[in-house]
Amino acid sequence: MHPLVHKRSHLLGLPPGTLVPREDTPSAPIQITLYQYAPDTLTEQSFARIEDLPGERIPGARHWLDIDGVHDLSLLQSLQTFYQLHPLVIEDICNIGQRAKVEDYGGYLYVVLKMITISNRRPHFEQVSLVLGPDYVLSFQEAPGDVFDPVRKRLRNPQGLMRNHGSCFLAYALLDVIVDHYFLVLETLGERLEQLEEKVLRDPSTHTQKQIRDMRRDLIQLRRSVWPVRDLINGLERTESDLMPPAVRPYLRDLYDHVIQIIDIIESLRDVLAGLTDLYLSSLSHRMNEVMKVLTIIGTIFIPLTFIAGVYGMNFDVMPELHYRYGYPLVMGIMMLIGLMLVYYFKRKKWL
Amino acid sequence: MHPLVHKRSHLLGLPPGTLVPREDTPSAPIQITLYQYAPDTLTEQSFARIEDLPGERIPGARHWLDIDGVHDLSLLQSLQTFYQLHPLVIEDICNIGQRAKVEDYGGYLYVVLKMITISNRRPHFEQVSLVLGPDYVLSFQEAPGDVFDPVRKRLRNPQGLMRNHGSCFLAYALLDVIVDHYFLVLETLGERLEQLEEKVLRDPSTHTQKQIRDMRRDLIQLRRSVWPVRDLINGLERTESDLMPPAVRPYLRDLYDHVIQIIDIIESLRDVLAGLTDLYLSSLSHRMNEVMKVLTIIGTIFIPLTFIAGVYGMNFDVMPELHYRYGYPLVMGIMMLIGLMLVYYFKRKKWL
Amino acid sequence: MHPLVHKRSHLLGLPPGTLVPREDTPSAPIQITLYQYAPDTLTEQSFARIEDLPGERIPGARHWLDIDGVHDLSLLQSLQTFYQLHPLVIEDICNIGQRAKVEDYGGYLYVVLKMITISNRRPHFEQVSLVLGPDYVLSFQEAPGDVFDPVRKRLRNPQGLMRNHGSCFLAYALLDVIVDHYFLVLETLGERLEQLEEKVLRDPSTHTQKQIRDMRRDLIQLRRSVWPVRDLINGLERTESDLMPPAVRPYLRDLYDHVIQIIDIIESLRDVLAGLTDLYLSSLSHRMNEVMKVLTIIGTIFIPLTFIAGVYGMNFDVMPELHYRYGYPLVMGIMMLIGLMLVYYFKRKKWL
Amino acid sequence: MHPLVHKRSHLLGLPPGTLVPREDTPSAPIQITLYQYAPDTLTEQSFARIEDLPGERIPGARHWLDIDGVHDLSLLQSLQTFYQLHPLVIEDICNIGQRAKVEDYGGYLYVVLKMITISNRRPHFEQVSLVLGPDYVLSFQEAPGDVFDPVRKRLRNPQGLMRNHGSCFLAYALLDVIVDHYFLVLETLGERLEQLEEKVLRDPSTHTQKQIRDMRRDLIQLRRSVWPVRDLINGLERTESDLMPPAVRPYLRDLYDHVIQIIDIIESLRDVLAGLTDLYLSSLSHRMNEVMKVLTIIGTIFIPLTFIAGVYGMNFDVMPELHYRYGYPLVMGIMMLIGLMLVYYFKRKKWL
Amino acid sequence: MHPLVHKRSHLLGLPPGTLVPREDTPSAPIQITLYQYAPDTLTEQSFARIEDLPGERIPGARHWLDIDGVHDLSLLQSLQTFYQLHPLVIEDICNIGQRAKVEDYGGYLYVVLKMITISNRRPHFEQVSLVLGPDYVLSFQEAPGDVFDPVRKRLRNPQGLMRNHGSCFLAYALLDVIVDHYFLVLETLGERLEQLEEKVLRDPSTHTQKQIRDMRRDLIQLRRSVWPVRDLINGLERTESDLMPPAVRPYLRDLYDHVIQIIDIIESLRDVLAGLTDLYLSSLSHRMNEVMKVLTIIGTIFIPLTFIAGVYGMNFDVMPELHYRYGYPLVMGIMMLIGLMLVYYFKRKKWL
Repeated sequence: MHPLVHKRSHLLGLPPGTLVPREDTPSAPIQITLYQYAPDTLTEQSFARIEDLPGERIPGARHWLDIDGVHDLSLLQSLQTFYQLHPLVIEDICNIGQRAKVEDYGGYLYVVLKMITISNRRPHFEQVSLVLGPDYVLSFQEAPGDVFDPVRKRLRNPQGLMRNHGSCFLAYALLDVIVDHYFLVLETLGERLEQLEEKVLRDPSTHTQKQIRDMRRDLIQLRRSVWPVRDLINGLERTESDLMPPAVRPYLRDLYDHVIQIIDIIESLRDVLAGLTDLYLSSLSHRMNEVMKVLTIIGTIFIPLTFIAGVYGMNFDVMPELHYRYGYPLVMGIMMLIGLMLVYYFKRKKWL
Repeated sequence: MHPLVHKRSHLLGLPPGTLVPREDTPSAPIQITLYQYAPDTLTEQSFARIEDLPGERIPGARHWLDIDGVHDLSLLQSLQTFYQLHPLVIEDICNIGQRAKVEDYGGYLYVVLKMITISNRRPHFEQVSLVLGPDYVLSFQEAPGDVFDPVRKRLRNPQGLMRNHGSCFLAYALLDVIVDHYFLVLETLGERLEQLEEKVLRDPSTHTQKQIRDMRRDLIQLRRSVWPVRDLINGLERTESDLMPPAVRPYLRDLYDHVIQIIDIIESLRDVLAGLTDLYLSSLSHRMNEVMKVLTIIGTIFIPLTFIAGVYGMNFDVMPELHYRYGYPLVMGIMMLIGLMLVYYFKRKKWL
Repeated sequence: MHPLVHKRSHLLGLPPGTLVPREDTPSAPIQITLYQYAPDTLTEQSFARIEDLPGERIPGARHWLDIDGVHDLSLLQSLQTFYQLHPLVIEDICNIGQRAKVEDYGGYLYVVLKMITISNRRPHFEQVSLVLGPDYVLSFQEAPGDVFDPVRKRLRNPQGLMRNHGSCFLAYALLDVIVDHYFLVLETLGERLEQLEEKVLRDPSTHTQKQIRDMRRDLIQLRRSVWPVRDLINGLERTESDLMPPAVRPYLRDLYDHVIQIIDIIESLRDVLAGLTDLYLSSLSHRMNEVMKVLTIIGTIFIPLTFIAGVYGMNFDVMPELHYRYGYPLVMGIMMLIGLMLVYYFKRKKWL
Repeated sequence: MHPLVHKRSHLLGLPPGTLVPREDTPSAPIQITLYQYAPDTLTEQSFARIEDLPGERIPGARHWLDIDGVHDLSLLQSLQTFYQLHPLVIEDICNIGQRAKVEDYGGYLYVVLKMITISNRRPHFEQVSLVLGPDYVLSFQEAPGDVFDPVRKRLRNPQGLMRNHGSCFLAYALLDVIVDHYFLVLETLGERLEQLEEKVLRDPSTHTQKQIRDMRRDLIQLRRSVWPVRDLINGLERTESDLMPPAVRPYLRDLYDHVIQIIDIIESLRDVLAGLTDLYLSSLSHRMNEVMKVLTIIGTIFIPLTFIAGVYGMNFDVMPELHYRYGYPLVMGIMMLIGLMLVYYFKRKKWL
Repeated sequence: MHPLVHKRSHLLGLPPGTLVPREDTPSAPIQITLYQYAPDTLTEQSFARIEDLPGERIPGARHWLDIDGVHDLSLLQSLQTFYQLHPLVIEDICNIGQRAKVEDYGGYLYVVLKMITISNRRPHFEQVSLVLGPDYVLSFQEAPGDVFDPVRKRLRNPQGLMRNHGSCFLAYALLDVIVDHYFLVLETLGERLEQLEEKVLRDPSTHTQKQIRDMRRDLIQLRRSVWPVRDLINGLERTESDLMPPAVRPYLRDLYDHVIQIIDIIESLRDVLAGLTDLYLSSLSHRMNEVMKVLTIIGTIFIPLTFIAGVYGMNFDVMPELHYRYGYPLVMGIMMLIGLMLVYYFKRKKWL
C-alpha cells in the first residue's frame, strides 16, 4: 500500500454508516480515560472495557472521555447510543484517512484532523476525532500515546482556563496542542532538509536520492494533512453553533494564525525541496565533469606521446633517426615538451 | 486514437440531438434488467430486447431499469418516448466522452459520470448515465459488467434504506458505489507507483520510462474524470429539485467528502510522480557517472604505463637503459609504483 | 513573424475604427453568398462583387450573408452602411488576431472566434466573425473554404430547426459546427502526440525535437483560441438581449459543455506533452548510457591487454620471460584470463 | 543595478511627497510643448523653461501640456502649484518604477504606465504619467522622443474626434497609441524568439544561453509592465468620475480588448520560451551523444586492432606465427575482418 | 535549525498567553527610549531598565516608546499592565516568527511585521511589533539597531507632519521606513543575482551552486515576509477603527502601492532565478561538451595513427614494406595525411 493512499477497498459497496473492523486491526488493547471536572473538582478514571464505564456522570461537572483505539466496534456502538451520535460520525471516527473537517450536527460538533508526531525523524500521522457536546468532549485516537499530556496537566490546575469555562475551551486546548506539535514536526523536517542540502552540495550518493524522495513524500503528506485544518479552524471560528461562544474566538483566531504560519513554512520547505532536486542534478553533472576532465587530461597528454613511441618502435630498415647518437634523448625531450605544453594549455583552460 | 481524446468526428455538423451509431460499436448484445421494488416486494426481470420490456409497471412500486450497452439506437429512442426524455439527454447517453455533470430537466435529473474499474492493473473508464425520475432510476452503461452488485444485494434486503425510501436513495447508492470504486483504483495506482519508485531507485531501464508514461497518462485521465464529479455531487446537494429531498443530503455531503479525499490523493500521487521523473533522470545520471568512473580509472592507470612500455619498445641504437642489468625489473617496479599511486589517488577521491 | 504574434504594426496610431488594407492581402477574389429562407422557401445567390447584391430582401424571410474574404474594404464599408454597424465592429472584422468574444451592440450581437481546420496535420486558424441581427446573420471569413457545409445542408431541409426558427438558431448552428471541428483538430493532435510518444521511446532524433516544438506551439495556439470561447458561449447564454430567446439556451448549454470538454482535452494533452519532454531527455540520457557502456567495456578489456603486449615489446637486454619456451602462450593465456574476468565482471554489473 | 529592480534607496526615509533629484539625472534639457485646441483652432508652442510658459490659456480651448524630462524639480513644483496637484502625484511622476495605475483625485485623474519602444531589438521602458483634468491633459515623459506623433498628427485634423470632444478623448488617444506600441514590441520579440528557436535546433552555442537569458528578462519585464495596464483600463472604464463620460467607454472597451490580446501573446511567448529551454538542454544532450558516438566508434574499432598489433610486436623468442610465410597478410586480413564486423555492428545499431 | 523554520517547540502545550524566555536569549541589554512630543515640544529619554521609566507622561503630548530587546519578560509584563494589553498581544510580541498582520483590539491596534536589513549582502530579518494607541505608539524590536533613524530625525522637525498630527502618522512613518528598506534589500539581491548570472554564464563552479541555493532561500524568506504585509496595509486602510482617520489613508494607499511594487519585483527575481538554474545546468552541459570534444578529437586523430605504428612494429619475418627504401617516410606521410583529413573533418563539423 502506498503511504499516500489509505486502504478503503474493504468498505466497498457497504451501506453508509456501516462499521467494519479493519483488516490490520492493531491488537493493542483499547484504553478509556474519563476526566470529570468542575471549577472545584477533578476526577480521573481509567478503564479497559466500555462496560466498566459508569452510566452516570457527576452532576454539574463537564467531562472528557479520552479513547485510545478506534478498532473496537462494540465500544463505538455503545458510545453512539449513549451520546446519540449520527451513524456517519461513527463511521468517520472508525475509518482513518478522513480529511480534516468540522461538522455541525446540531447538538454537537464533530471535528476530525491528523495528530502528527515524530517517529524515527519522520512524521507519523494519526487520526484524532473530537466530539464537542454542551458539557462533554470525546476524543478518539487510533492508538495509545498522544500529545495531550500538557492539556492533562493544565486540567489539573484549578485556576486554569479550562476548569472554569465550557467544554469548548477543552476542545480548543486539544486542537491547540495538536497544532503546536505541527511546529515540532516542521522543526525536524527543516533540520533534515538542511542536512540533505549539505549532503547534496558535498557528497551526493544514491542514498541521497532516496532521502529526497522520502522528504518529498513527507512534505506532500504533511501538506495534505495541514491545509484542510485551516478551513477547519476557520469553520469553528465562524460557526453559528452555541457550542463556540464568542469568548473562545480570539483563541481560535490565534490558532488560525498558527495554522497559516505552518502552511507558510510547509510551502517554503516545498520550494526549497524543489530547488534541492535541481541542485542534486547539477551536483551530479559537476561530478561527471570532474571525472571526464581527469580522463581527458590523462588521455590527451599520453595518447600523442604513445603514438610517438610507437613510431620509433617500427621496424623499418631505413629509419635514420634511430641511428642518431642523440636520437633517444631528443625524442624524450620532445615528448616532455609536448606534455608540458598540454599541461600549460589545460592550466590556461582552468581544467587543472 | 490517443486514449485522452474521444472520437467525435463522426458527429461533425449533425443537428443537435441526432443519434449516430458508433463506428466501433461493440457486437456484444445489450442487456436490460428491470428491478421493481417497494418496501414489501421486489421483482427482477432480464431482457435481451427492448420489445420484451413490459409497458406497465407494478403500481405503487419504484423501479430501476439497468441497461448495459448504449449502442442500440432503437432502444434509446423507445426509452426516450416512454420516459419523455429530452433529445440532448439521449445524445449525451449515446456519446461517450461526456464530462461528469448533473442537469435538471424539471421532471427528472440527468447525471453522467465515469465508472472506473481496474483491468490488468490499469484503470478502465466506462461512462455511466443515470436518469432519476420521481419513481424510477434509469442507468446506462457502455458494456455488461459493472460495480453495482453491492447495490443489487442491498436492494434485496427488505430492511434496507433503499427499499423504504424514494428513488433518490437508489441513485445515491449507485453514485456511492461508483465513487467507492475510485478508492480501489487509487489503491492499485498507489501500489504501481510504489513499485515504480523502487525500480527507478534500484534498476532504471527503458521499460521504466514507458511505465512512467503510462502512470502519467492514467493519472491525467483519472484526474480529468474525477474533478468534475466534485461539482456534480455539489450540484446534487444544492439542487432545488424535489427529486433530492433534504433526507438524502447528509449522505451526499458524506459522498462529497469522499470525492474531495479522492481528489486529494490524486493530486498527491501526481506530485509524487512529478518527483519520480526527476528521480529517474538523476538515477540515469548516477549510472552514467558509475560507467564513466570505471572507464576513467582503467584508462588513467594504464595509459601512462602503456606509454612507458612504448618508450622502451623504441628501436634507437643508443638507449642505455635497455642494457642495464636491472633495467627491466626497475621499469616494471616504477610502473607498479605509478599504478599504486593512481589507485591511492582515486581511493582518496572516493572513486573506488 | 512568429506564428503566435499577429502583425498589427501597420495599424499603429490610427484613429479607432479606421480600416487599413493588410499588406499581405490575399489576391483571392472575394465570394458573397446570400441565403434567404423562410419555413417554406429558400433562395441561394452567389456574387463576386458587393455591387451585385440586391438592395432588397425577400419580405418575411430571414437571410444569411456569407462573406469569404475580409480584405475588401469597400465591401466592408458598404455593409457597415447597409446594416448600420459600429465602426469598431468593422475594424474588428477586418483585423485578424481578435480574441474570441461576444459584444452586444443593442440592435445586433457581434461574435468573433477562430475556425480551426486541419491542414497538413497541423491546425490552421482562421478568424470568423458573426453579426446576429433580428432577422439576419452575417458571417465573415478570411478566405474561401470553411466548415459550414453541414449547416448549408441542414438549411436546405424544410423540416429543420433553422428554417422554422429565428436567426439565432442559424448563428447557433454556425458556432456549433465550428466548435465540433475543434474535436476533429484534437483527434489529429492526439494522434500526432501518440506517434511522437512512440518515437521518443523508440528512436529519438533531432527531428523529434522539432516535432515536440511544433506540437507545443500548436497546443499553445489552440489553447489561446479555445479558452475565450468558453466565456463567449457563457456570455451568449447569459445575455439579456432579445436576440437570444430562452428556446436556444439548452442548445447553448450543450455547446458550453462541448467547449469545456475541449478545454479539458487540451489541458490533458498539454500535460502529456510536458511529460514527453522529460521522456525525451531521459531517452537521450539512456542512449548516452548505452554508448558509454560500449566504449567503457571495449576500453576496459583491451587497454590492460595492450599494456601487457607493450611490456613484452620492450627491448631490454635482460628480460628472462622472453626466452622461456612457453612464455608466449603463457602470456596469451593470462591475457585471455584477464579478458574473461572483465567480461564476467561486466555481466555481473548487468552492463552486458 | 539589476534591470528588474529600480533604484529607490536614495529616497529612504524621506517624508512622503518629497521631491529628490535622481543621481543619474540625464543632462538632456527639458522640453515643454503646449497644444491649445478647440474645434476651430490649434496652437502649438514649445518652451525650454517653465518660466516661459504663458500663465493664461486661450479661453474656451482645451490644452495638452507635453513635458519631456521629469528630473527638473522646479518645473514639477511650479506645475503642482498651477494645477493644484497632490504632492503624492508629483512624487509618483518624479520617481520612475511606478506600477501602472489610475488614481482619482476628485478634480483630476492621475494615470501612470510604461511606454515601451524598441531599441536595438530589445524593449526600452519609459514611464509616462498623464494628468487628465476637465479641460487639460498633462503628459510627463522621462526623456525626449516618444510614440505620440500619430496623436499630434490627428490633433491637427480639424475633423478629428479629439478636436471636437473633451480632453478625455485626447487622454484615450495617448493611451491607445502607447498600447498599440506594445504590439510592435511583441512583434520584435516574436521574431527574436523565432530566430532563437531556429538557432537552438540547428546550432546551440554559449551565446544562445545569453540570448535565452535576455529573452526571459525582456518577457518578465514586459509582463510586469503590461499586466497592471489591464486593471488601469478597467479602472478607467468603471470610474464614476465625470472626467470619463459614457461616450468614451466603447473606445476604452476596445482598448481593454487590445490589452487582453497583448497579455495573451505575452503568456504564449513565455510558454514557448519555457519550452525553448528544454529544447536547448536536449539539443546539448544530442550534440554530446554525437560526440560520444564518434569517439566510441573510433575507439571500439581501433583499440582491439592495436592490441593485436601489440601482440605481434612482442619479442618472445618462440612465437611461431611470426615465422609463417603468410603470417603478416593473414593478421592484416583478420584485423580488417574485425574492423568490418564492428562497422557492420554499428550500422545495425544505427550509430553510423 | 533550518533558517526557514522558527523554533517554537519550547512553547509546546503551554496555555495561550504564557510568556517563555527564549533559550537563545541574546545577552544584549535592553534599551528603552521614550519620545514625548507635541507641536511645540519634544523630549527624548533613554533607559536601561523598565523601573526607571516615569509613570507619568507629559500632559497633552503624544509619546513613542521605542523598545529594543523583547526577551525581558518582566519588562513586557509591566508594559502589559500599564497599557492594558491583551495577553495574546504580549505573547505575539515575545515570540518571533509571527506572520505580518494587524489586529484591532478596540482601544489599540497591534501591528507586527518583519524589518529587513542587509547584513553581509544577505537579508537579515527582525520582527517589529507596533502598538498604536490613541496618543501613543509602542515599538518592539528583537535587538538594538534599526531603520528608524530617519523617523527620529523628522520627529525633531517641529514643522513635520508627525509633530502636528495624531500618533497614527508616527505609526505610518515607522511602517513607511520599514517598507522603504525592503527596496534597499531588493537592490542588493538584484545586484547579487546579476553577478550570479554573469558567473553562471562565464565560469560555473561548485560554489555557484551554493550561491544559487542561498539566493533561493533569501527570496523564499523575503517573499514569505512581504506578501502578508500587503494584507496588513490593506487591513489598516480599510479598518473602521478611529485610530486610522481618513487623513492618513492616501498615505496608506501610497504605501500599499509600494508593497505591490516590491511583490512584483520579488516575483520577477524569482522568475529570473528559476531561469538561472536552467542556465546553470545548460552551462555545465556545455562545459562537458567542450571537454568531451577535446578528448574525442585527440583520441580520434591519434588512435588510428598509433594502430598503424603498431602494425609496423610487428616482428613478422616477412613484412616486405619494412624493407622498402622509402617505406618509413611513406608511412609517415600517410599518417600525416590521415591526421589532416580528420582535422579537416572536425573543422567541417565545427568541432574545432
